[in-house]
Amino acid sequence: MFFVKVYVTYKQSVLDPQGEAVKGAIHQLGYEGVQDVRIGKYFELKVKQTAEPVEEVIETLCDQLLANVNMETYRYEIVEMEEEA
Amino acid sequence: MFFVKVYVTYKQSVLDPQGEAVKGAIHQLGYEGVQDVRIGKYFELKVKQTAEPVEEVIETLCDQLLANVNMETYRYEIVEMEEEA
Repeated sequence: MFFVKVYVTYKQSVLDPQGEAVKGAIHQLGYEGVQDVRIGKYFELKVKQTAEPVEEVIETLCDQLLANVNMETYRYEIVEMEEEA
Repeated sequence: MFFVKVYVTYKQSVLDPQGEAVKGAIHQLGYEGVQDVRIGKYFELKVKQTAEPVEEVIETLCDQLLANVNMETYRYEIVEMEEEA
């Protein structure tokens, strides 16, 4: 069993209006020191070992479902978990 | 300057319907090995050093703005960045 964390963020060249809005709200709270906010999605998946390597499964899922590869970029971390009894 | 990554996820006891929907979509793609999906939010902040320690700033922002502490939990990582010229 694998525990996989996937982070999907906008590419640097893409404007993040949600992040801009949150930055405005942070400034209204008085934290002017926060200079940039970007918002992404975070997925935690539990994946069972199959014939296909888990890296390939995750990349296929990101490309086909989790990320919009035109505007977003993704990275992932895979941790092998001990099998539960 | 600090680069801060904040991860906001539902508490384990809270149902994640969006994660369930994505799990269904993953299974429709034929990846039955994916047994659990949970979705969270991911924030990247650039924070300038101020009199207040950056950990305190981030915890205040999470409690007051970024996370719904009734249903969500958060964790963060702070990396110190070199000052840009």
